[in-house]
Formats: sequence, structure tokens, C-alpha cells
Amino acid sequence: MINRKINIAVIGLGQVGNYLLNELNTKKKDIEIKTGKKIHIVGISAKNKNKKRRFKINKSIFFKNPLEIIKSKKVDVLFEVIGQSDGISKKIVETALKNKIHVVTPNKALISKHGDYLSNLAEKNKVNLEFEASVAGGIPILRTIKEGLATNKLNKVYGILNGTCNYILSEMEKTKQNFSIVLNKAQSLGYAEPGNPKLDLNGYDAFAKIRILSSLAFNKKISKKKSLMEGIENIDYKDIEIASQLNFRIKLLGITEIINGKLFERVHPALVKKDTYIGNVNGVMNAVIVEGKPIGESVLQGEGAGPGATSSALMSDLLSILRGNIKYPFGLPGIKRKKPICYNERNSSNSLYLRLEVKDKPGVLSEITKLLANNRISIQRVIQIPDNKKRSASIIIITHKAVEHRSQNLIKSLKKNNNVIKKPVLVRLF
Amino acid sequence: MINRKINIAVIGLGQVGNYLLNELNTKKKDIEIKTGKKIHIVGISAKNKNKKRRFKINKSIFFKNPLEIIKSKKVDVLFEVIGQSDGISKKIVETALKNKIHVVTPNKALISKHGDYLSNLAEKNKVNLEFEASVAGGIPILRTIKEGLATNKLNKVYGILNGTCNYILSEMEKTKQNFSIVLNKAQSLGYAEPGNPKLDLNGYDAFAKIRILSSLAFNKKISKKKSLMEGIENIDYKDIEIASQLNFRIKLLGITEIINGKLFERVHPALVKKDTYIGNVNGVMNAVIVEGKPIGESVLQGEGAGPGATSSALMSDLLSILRGNIKYPFGLPGIKRKKPICYNERNSSNSLYLRLEVKDKPGVLSEITKLLANNRISIQRVIQIPDNKKRSASIIIITHKAVEHRSQNLIKSLKKNNNVIKKPVLVRLF
Repeated sequence: MINRKINIAVIGLGQVGNYLLNELNTKKKDIEIKTGKKIHIVGISAKNKNKKRRFKINKSIFFKNPLEIIKSKKVDVLFEVIGQSDGISKKIVETALKNKIHVVTPNKALISKHGDYLSNLAEKNKVNLEFEASVAGGIPILRTIKEGLATNKLNKVYGILNGTCNYILSEMEKTKQNFSIVLNKAQSLGYAEPGNPKLDLNGYDAFAKIRILSSLAFNKKISKKKSLMEGIENIDYKDIEIASQLNFRIKLLGITEIINGKLFERVHPALVKKDTYIGNVNGVMNAVIVEGKPIGESVLQGEGAGPGATSSALMSDLLSILRGNIKYPFGLPGIKRKKPICYNERNSSNSLYLRLEVKDKPGVLSEITKLLANNRISIQRVIQIPDNKKRSASIIIITHKAVEHRSQNLIKSLKKNNNVIKKPVLVRLF
Repeated sequence: MINRKINIAVIGLGQVGNYLLNELNTKKKDIEIKTGKKIHIVGISAKNKNKKRRFKINKSIFFKNPLEIIKSKKVDVLFEVIGQSDGISKKIVETALKNKIHVVTPNKALISKHGDYLSNLAEKNKVNLEFEASVAGGIPILRTIKEGLATNKLNKVYGILNGTCNYILSEMEKTKQNFSIVLNKAQSLGYAEPGNPKLDLNGYDAFAKIRILSSLAFNKKISKKKSLMEGIENIDYKDIEIASQLNFRIKLLGITEIINGKLFERVHPALVKKDTYIGNVNGVMNAVIVEGKPIGESVLQGEGAGPGATSSALMSDLLSILRGNIKYPFGLPGIKRKKPICYNERNSSNSLYLRLEVKDKPGVLSEITKLLANNRISIQRVIQIPDNKKRSASIIIITHKAVEHRSQNLIKSLKKNNNVIKKPVLVRLF
């Protein structure tokens, strides 16, 4: 089905693409032993040919326009490592699949947006579209769901899916420093994008991963619904400190589950108990928990990001292709994957952690508790911490379970209240 | 390569085989959607046809002699779920492979003993021999090593591989009950074999799994060397209690690693810190930690035993076969798998936990510490707990790192010493 000699193109030579290129070059022999195929890199492409890179590139096979590689060379497997959700990333993957070229990519933005369309293209052209590296690089979670747990009925998948956010939250707790200082540190260590870390911090990156996990776990098309997505930008060291006193840690969680036949996907920070498994996944680690029958609960943990972990996943996809295993990209034929019916997140309910910065004057607490009562949200615990210098106070409230649309209403009225002097912080309890 | 209609035989109808049969019957449709193949069970066999079983069996396809199924029916995939290391288990798998029938089995005793021979047979006859269920049923660890981490260079795999032992140790800690009471409970709950739990308790079961993991992780033939294998039979509640006071838990660990190019496999109870990941894997859970490059550390956790988890793994193997993926059973051709060179475990070193029951009279401690000094084992900590009623005392010693052959010598001389009134307990620190 696939020849003994395999021609490979690598598009995108940033940190990951460059590392991958080195892996491909140094592991040729190993790949031949395991698959019987000899790989040969016939073309590489990137925005900048002469940028300083960790591993030297072979400039004689460099193409300014990646589409030229497909036109001028026989390519069997193409790696797309640019990372855009549209633009040249989509164009090159589309063109490759139409030309019966197998594609491997870590591009979660592309797959979570165009995965259904691209997987249909792959099926039609009888080639593979592999994207193990798009979710939690160091953890072979997609393969585990598609193959290892293939006949289980899964009902929930959740976890820590963004290493950058988890690093920042862990580091804030450890060093007692504030968000912006730790973010700078994360950037200087290469964990967060130096230019624009927004897509990590606002939950978008984790949400793209959750979309991919949902469609695999529940055998559905990728959801288009904009659901609950919140990042960690509003989390202050104060919140981490108070949570800790209450025996909690704050983690950015991605959660997808089926509730009464409906799909509920969300990403938001959450208070998790310190003595739980998920409460102890720290630093850049990712963790995914899968619940299903008959399997019970399965946990996978590993490095979530970085060129090493990502390349490991890209290489496993390559080997899967070289072993001649043509597979449905989402584990079953596109035609069998129905559109999901989505759960209305406004009906979900959670206990809440609220932190309000208020004017320190008589009657404020009574005003606020009245707002909660108006929204039928009952209080489990209140802590008031005065800040005498600023003549303000922090009010921390832990509520009993509150329905989401009422919580949102509450936040709206709190924002309008003259005695609340900063944007209220809301973190759901997990 | 494989027809659209697939004939299946299931040999062995104990708890696992019976559960599997039910899964096969209820998930036919799901399997057809995912693989395009219609499965059909053409023969079943067990020792006892009329035994009361959880799920009813179709007696019209029951064969007293399993070999008769192969003779009289066209079989595509055979499940061997009997579980012997030799005898009929080996015979039926051998015969099936020679007749170009794919084989799926959870039989770790068979694979760890005859895996090299059987995988050669499978390769020669171009069929699959799949045994994902042989190690940590609920965790697709073999597939993860063979495929998900295919191009990583692994150097260590370790974990909690026996759910029965982990349940017993956790339950002893929780209920403060002694070994034999908790063992009875484990048996009544179905976690430990009612007749002969020995193979779980003495470490044999975990060791068979470690052998399979080694050969996959390091791409070697299965080792034949009898290495360090100790079970949990000598662990007393007293040890768990003392360990706890020192901030440790006792876990039965299986460990395999490459030390200077040599393979070191072992199974023994170990003191692990309470605040580590592995120290918090409790009950019947299994956990496997894989260390390698570039992946770093990957952790997988899930239910280790029980018919549900085991069937999940058996079904994933079936689906892999139905997707038409012929694979080397150990990830690469038999001819490329070299015999491992084994590390001499007598040269390994560990800190030790020792508990000695001694006569409570002057000079005993000095006598014992002298024995340690003679064996060049230095002491980190000593605790002496008198038992005034019995005129005896417990001496607990935590040592600095001691070389294994010296530790063994020490135990020998302690056993001979007249003031030591019970078999000394030695647990290595991890």
C-alpha cells in the first residue's frame, strides 16, 4: 500500500518543526527496524530560511512556498507544523490530502475548527490525517481513546490540558508572586508565547483540545457551539492563598461530558481539593481523566508541551502510517458521526467561590448577601478580610450549588453595585 | 486480508471469558461501525459446560475440546482466556497461530514464559498475537509503549502492577487490620483468588508483567533470569503503621530499567513517600510510570483487574486486528530483538527499612548495630519500641544505601542471632 521508501515534507520550522526534523534525521534506522520503511526528507519550508535554529537545516531542500514541494516532489507524508487555524495551514493540509498525501499535524486550532471537513477529505482520498500531538503531546490520549478504549462507552473526559496555565498557577502558589510576574517568568522560560500568550491564558487553547477530545470520546462531529470558556487572567495570588487556606488549589480544567444525551463542553478555572489526584498535577504537566464503562476511571499524565513531547507524538503518528494502518481520523467513518446535541450551559450548576473587593463601610455585606438571596444562591461560608490602609475589604463567599444563569445574573448585579470596587472574581468548585 | 465476516472462538469461560462473551454479543453493531466487520461467535469452550455463570452461554456452540473448534470451524480470531503458562493454554495458542488464526489473550504467565516463541510463530504465519490485557487491564500500556511512544528511548518503567496486593496494603492501612484478615476480605470481594492467591501475593504475577514490559520498552527478548522477586506475605500491620509515622506508605512495586546497558528487573515491596504520586495510588488501582527521551515522564493509571477492565483490553486488541493492522507482537521483528544482558541484582543498592523482633535485654541493640557495621551498612535512624508484656522489643532501623549482597548477608546473620526472635522484615526504600 505504501512503498518501502517514504518521502517526507516538513512545513513549519519553529521550535517544534525544527526539533521534529532532528528526530526524523537521527531515528531513520530505528524507524526502518520497526516499520521496514526508509524515510527520506524531500522538502522543508518555513517563513524564514535563515533564522538561527537549534538544529541546522538542509537549505538545499528548502522551499519558500510549501505548495511547491507538493508540486515538484513525490511526497508520501507531510507534517504541518505551522499552527494556524486557517490560512496557509489549512491550504497546505487540504492540498496534501487531495493529492493523496498522508498528513500529520499538532495543530489543534486547525483540527478543532476544520477537523470534520479535513477528515472527510482524508477518508475520500484513502490517506491518514493524524493529530495525536494536538492534545497533550506527551500523553497518547487520542490513540488511547480511539484504540485502547475503543469499545468502551465513555461519558466524561476532563483534565489539565494547558501546561502554560498550570505552570503559572503552580508557580504563583509556590512563589507567592502575582500573575503578571509569573507570566513574565513563564515567557522567559519558553512556556508561554513571548508575543501573544492570550490563546493559552484565556482558555482558547484548552477549549480546542476539549473539542477534539469530545468528538473522539463520544463519536460525534466537532461541536460548533460557543460554550463556557474562561481563562486564568483574573486569578490573583490572593485567590490562590485563600483557596489554599480552605484546602483547595486553583486549576484550569477542561471538561467534556454527556448529560442526558447532550454534550457539555467547558473550560474554566476551578477550585479542586488539595488531596485529590488532579489537585496534585503541578507545573507544566498535563493530565487527562477518562470515565467510561466497563473501564471505570483511567488517568494519563505527562508533559503537555514543549518540542520533545510534541515530536514524540508526531513520530508515533508517522510510525502508525508507516505500519500501513489506514484509519478513520476520528475512529469511525465520518458518515456515522452525528452532530452533537448541546447542553445549555446556563442550566448547569456549581458551588462558587466569589471574591469581592468592597468599600469597608456598614451595610455592604448585608447588601451583597441580599443580591445572592435575590438570585436564589445560598451561602455556605463567608470570610471578610479588611484592608485598613485602603479602607476596603475582601469578601470571600463559598456558595452552595447555584444554577449558572443565576450566577451570571449575580455577577452582573455585583458589577453594577457601587460598593463593589473591582471586577468580582468567580471560580467554580469542581 | 481479512474478510468482512469474522469468526470468533472463545476458550475459557471463567469470570473474564464470560464477561468478554457478553461484550462481544452486545457490541456487534458498534464493532461493525468502527471496523466494517461483522463478528460471529462460532465456538466456545471451557472445563465445565453447566457451571452457573453471570451471563448465559449458547450451549449449541460449546465444545468440550477447544482444539475441535479449530478443526471443525473456520476461525479468524481466537481468544485464549484460560490462563495457564503451559498445558492447554499453550497448546491452543500454538495450534491457532499455526493455522493462521489471530490470537488475543490476557495470559501474562503464558506470554512472559513463551512470548518469544509464540510471537515468532505469529510472525511466520502473518497473524497477530495480541496481549494488551496481560498487563494492567484498564491501562492500554502495551499499545502506548509500542505505538504512542514508539520512537522514544525508554530507560525505566515501573509501577503498581498487582491490584490485589495494592488493595490489601491500602486496606491494612485504612482499617488497621492484619494481613490475614484483609486477605480474607479481598477473597470474599473477588479481588484475590479464593483457592490460591499465592501467585499474586508472592510477586510472581507482577514479575510476569514486568518481563513483558521490559521486552517491549527496551526492544529485547524476554529475560529468563530469576531476579529479585519478593511479595507482601511478610508485611505486618505494624510495618504499615511505623512507615506511616515516618511519612511513608508500603507499596508492591515492579521496576524494570537499563543500568549501564544492562537489564535490571525486580518486584518487591517498597517504602514510598506519602506525598509522591505513586504513594497515592490506592485500592485496586494500577499505575505505570514510563521514563524516556524525549517524552520525559508519562504516567498511566487505571483499574488493574476485574473482568470489565480486562475485557476492555481484549476488545481493543480485537478491533486492532479487525482494522487490518498486522503488527509485530513485540513492536519489531523477532530477529531484531536481542537477548538482554542482565544486571547482577547483588550489586544494586537501596536504603533499607528493617524491623526486628528481639529479646528485651541489655546489649541486644549493640549486638545488632555491630552486625550492620560488619556488613558496612550505616544507620540513618533507629527506633526501639518495647513490648513489656512479652518482654520483647521491636527495633526499627532505617539505613543509608546498602549494597544488596551485604543486605542479604546481614539478614542471614540476623536470622542466626539468638536474640532475634522472629524472621526479620526488610523493605527497600524507593
